[in-house]
Amino acid sequence: MHRTHDAGTLRRSDAGTRATLVGWVHRRRDLGGLIFIDLRDRSGIVQLVVTPEAKEAFRVAETLRSEYVIAVRGTVKARAPETVNPKLSTGDVEVAVEAIEVLNTAKTLPFGLADDAPVDEALRLKYRYLDLRRPALQETLRLRHEVTRIVRDVLSRHGFLEVETPILSKSTPEGARDFLVPSRLRPGTFYALPQSPQLYKQLLMVAGVERYFQIARCFRDEDLRADRQPEFTQIDIEMSFMSLPEFQAIVEEMIAEVFEKTRGIRLERPFPRLSYDEAMDRYGTDKPDLRYGLEIVDVGEIFRETELQVFRRALALGGVVRAIRADGAAALSRKDIAALEAEAKAHGAQGLAWLKLEADGASGSIARFVPEPVLAALRAKTGAEPGDVLFFVADRREVARAALGAVRRLLAERLGRVPDGAFRILWVTDFPLLEYDPDEKRYVALHHPFTRPKAEDWDKLETEPLQVRAESYDLVLNGYEIGGGSLRIYRKEDQLRLFRRLGLDEAEVAEKFGFFLEALEYGAPPHGGIALGLDRIVALLAGRSNIRDVIAFPKTQSGADLMMEAPSRVRPEQLAELGITVRALQG
Amino acid sequence: MHRTHDAGTLRRSDAGTRATLVGWVHRRRDLGGLIFIDLRDRSGIVQLVVTPEAKEAFRVAETLRSEYVIAVRGTVKARAPETVNPKLSTGDVEVAVEAIEVLNTAKTLPFGLADDAPVDEALRLKYRYLDLRRPALQETLRLRHEVTRIVRDVLSRHGFLEVETPILSKSTPEGARDFLVPSRLRPGTFYALPQSPQLYKQLLMVAGVERYFQIARCFRDEDLRADRQPEFTQIDIEMSFMSLPEFQAIVEEMIAEVFEKTRGIRLERPFPRLSYDEAMDRYGTDKPDLRYGLEIVDVGEIFRETELQVFRRALALGGVVRAIRADGAAALSRKDIAALEAEAKAHGAQGLAWLKLEADGASGSIARFVPEPVLAALRAKTGAEPGDVLFFVADRREVARAALGAVRRLLAERLGRVPDGAFRILWVTDFPLLEYDPDEKRYVALHHPFTRPKAEDWDKLETEPLQVRAESYDLVLNGYEIGGGSLRIYRKEDQLRLFRRLGLDEAEVAEKFGFFLEALEYGAPPHGGIALGLDRIVALLAGRSNIRDVIAFPKTQSGADLMMEAPSRVRPEQLAELGITVRALQG
Repeated sequence: MHRTHDAGTLRRSDAGTRATLVGWVHRRRDLGGLIFIDLRDRSGIVQLVVTPEAKEAFRVAETLRSEYVIAVRGTVKARAPETVNPKLSTGDVEVAVEAIEVLNTAKTLPFGLADDAPVDEALRLKYRYLDLRRPALQETLRLRHEVTRIVRDVLSRHGFLEVETPILSKSTPEGARDFLVPSRLRPGTFYALPQSPQLYKQLLMVAGVERYFQIARCFRDEDLRADRQPEFTQIDIEMSFMSLPEFQAIVEEMIAEVFEKTRGIRLERPFPRLSYDEAMDRYGTDKPDLRYGLEIVDVGEIFRETELQVFRRALALGGVVRAIRADGAAALSRKDIAALEAEAKAHGAQGLAWLKLEADGASGSIARFVPEPVLAALRAKTGAEPGDVLFFVADRREVARAALGAVRRLLAERLGRVPDGAFRILWVTDFPLLEYDPDEKRYVALHHPFTRPKAEDWDKLETEPLQVRAESYDLVLNGYEIGGGSLRIYRKEDQLRLFRRLGLDEAEVAEKFGFFLEALEYGAPPHGGIALGLDRIVALLAGRSNIRDVIAFPKTQSGADLMMEAPSRVRPEQLAELGITVRALQG
Repeated sequence: MHRTHDAGTLRRSDAGTRATLVGWVHRRRDLGGLIFIDLRDRSGIVQLVVTPEAKEAFRVAETLRSEYVIAVRGTVKARAPETVNPKLSTGDVEVAVEAIEVLNTAKTLPFGLADDAPVDEALRLKYRYLDLRRPALQETLRLRHEVTRIVRDVLSRHGFLEVETPILSKSTPEGARDFLVPSRLRPGTFYALPQSPQLYKQLLMVAGVERYFQIARCFRDEDLRADRQPEFTQIDIEMSFMSLPEFQAIVEEMIAEVFEKTRGIRLERPFPRLSYDEAMDRYGTDKPDLRYGLEIVDVGEIFRETELQVFRRALALGGVVRAIRADGAAALSRKDIAALEAEAKAHGAQGLAWLKLEADGASGSIARFVPEPVLAALRAKTGAEPGDVLFFVADRREVARAALGAVRRLLAERLGRVPDGAFRILWVTDFPLLEYDPDEKRYVALHHPFTRPKAEDWDKLETEPLQVRAESYDLVLNGYEIGGGSLRIYRKEDQLRLFRRLGLDEAEVAEKFGFFLEALEYGAPPHGGIALGLDRIVALLAGRSNIRDVIAFPKTQSGADLMMEAPSRVRPEQLAELGITVRALQG
């Protein structure tokens, strides 16, 4: 029997058509002497009806169980009005079956597919090939396909060439741990799986490719946090001779087209831009979620002359006093407020002061230190009105930022201010080039050591390194960093100067980056780029909080593939060939 | 200065336009008090002229050397007729320069880019980022990009979803050596890099994806022959509920569209089909090059009753006598014929008999054993005429096939019968399912152990295993296998029966394929697919014999990346974390 139609596509207009369908028995019900089968294929579900008159087919139908694979021949019929199923796109019709062929049988599945009941994730992962049959996961696979199609279309339209770079590579400088691959032909040496194609794409710019992209697999051997995978996919883009606005416009066009074509959502362009400092001051994070307000306001000037000693002391020590106006938050319970305070403390603050504004005056932890003029000034500065609550942190700037950023997120959650299905995107730019690593006792690159400092900040590199801003930009969507990029250093002496500032050992530089420094001597063009996290973007589009849901065969947090049972032991001969031995056999 | 035009796009119609260009100094000449610069960017080359009147620009121009990166502003001018350069697409114009900015300098390159002179390949690979600047290699990158674009377009049009499968995987059964990746979180265990996504794509069929593809990176740790790479890219396709003709038509459409859109070449569809047996009999190979004739003809019947003892003995032993008619080959020298004979012997034949047909009779190694009636029969059977040469091998069928296949290839070369720029493609089908491995003393799968035997041959599996044909098909282009696929086994009992026939150890089957066998029990649909070698296809389209030319960053035959110097030693701490030690430190 040769398939003529996809099950999910049949409509009332097909009534009278003879059709051959294939797919899985989604459900079988025997009712009033008839057998009803929901037949499922990739396109959807349609109802089959088998009557005892179709003798042989009826006999076969009686043997069918869930997930049997069948082919059926029959005639599409319009359903009587009272039997129409509005929940199915094919609910207007059913197929009167004349013949059934069983293509394959199925044991009872370890979990139900139609079932929304929670199933142990480990079980789902072991039987991933069954879990993937669920329409919701099929939909994420299709969405991922669409997203990469659109990305490739837009970038190709702008003259970017997709170039494949090696997986068997060398240690890259992203700083995370590398996965290593022992070489058999050169025992004692190892390839590293790339943490990103960073050096390759910069070398492609030196090679004159000018516009490169790749949907690239990357690898990091990290202790996996809740939502990381040892291998992940990034949309990797690099461009020579770029002006930053031109480049950002291309990236915006790409993202906007993805949203428009997959979700019918128009993102306004150009995307908003915030400098790192603005983002930190106003949202307490470099990944601000703009789906809700609750901005942070500096109220230091107001408290400079008050009697609130804690605030004054913070200011005197060079710190800040900042507040969030939680509008209409009077209904927050004591418990909510305690949770917010705990959140602030978890992010380093001494405490979280608060004021509940009332028709006349205010209550709350610092109410008695806030005379009417101060209250009036706060109202003027924050726009707060009766019924609002103000939350305060007085501390070092970094602590106030972090603590109020966390309070803001929790407030939004408690106040139900995070709208479903909304998408707010922005650029965060001009990150610090460096940060101080107290463990390593040296400055390290915030992004990576190929990021170009802003031209006007170069001269602070040796004197005020933390004041040097980078030509860098992150793309932030709903509080998630979905991409990060920068203009790159393209002159050897600049690159060496930065390596020196990072305190890198000269021998290490020569060994790891010697070839790259040499490449910069042969006419490297000015260039820059970005890398976007495909898994996260698809997850956000799909309304999924876990990227495992948008990866066909994900790994667990301990890096295990529960389906294939990888990683696994190998034969001793394999190790012998590689010239390695396992030292620490455990378990 | 912000680029307004691409250098290679300027034409006479742009005369009078002000333009800002960026790129590399391809060449600088000082002539008659003027400075001429060939400026190169990705789009091509245009000539710049700097006159002493443009004082500052002239001063800068005097400092320019090859491969400096510059930005220039100037005016496009039509060249005088006598100075038009017909070799350049921009040869009608030049740009009168007003300002030059040096964006980056360049040392003298280790080899010339304009130079077609042979440069040591190791040097080219070390400086791959410079070698890639050559227009010919830029063109292969662009071609590769186009090919993957078209492949994705066609497959998406037919409802195939691109799904990414893991790189950190488990040993697959392709039979080549795996690259291993030690796990840090589970010391003593290893991931394997996939030799192909074979099991994943079959599991996606079990998952109900129905139509899958992926442009997939694959890995084989083999002793590299001249033209293999440890990592390579395949166009991987799998489809459920397929009829073979329908599937082949999709693949043909994809290949035809690639040829048409990248090379303007129309391939006739449907592609010709030859069974494995036909291909072996007529061309002596399962990868026949159809760009030339020189088919092999069986002439056993003619010699059965002759006095040529060598031929009669071969026939009596169950062997064959086969011939190639080399039309118009009378001009072949003794040396050519000796070379052909050596080729036949290198492929196992006892010798290579030959007959040169003349106006009256014949000369050659067996002329005196061939009386006129036999000669007439040979003429009738092979179509040979005076001026042609017939070459014979009498031997076991396998030997005659291989030897005459090799003779045919060498003949085509010596006779200059391989047309430049021609493409001849075909399907070779119905391969044997198994071959006997004398080393392992057991039958092994010719393709892989998931290939489905032809329905009518199942019952020979135990009794005449070598007679069992597979539902398999290779795609052959100009004598290269560019793809291979098959219908797959989709019932557990069939798969177990084949594993048993292969003599696989039950414990090994359970360990390696247990999860896969279980998957077949939960409603696996009938399915099949193909994998095509992207590198080879692009190389053939580009007229390149070496796939290294179509890979951005290829490795040497010993698997080394000469640019990055990978594989390399790693820090002892890294190995300690992985729980492995290097046993055989060499050199």
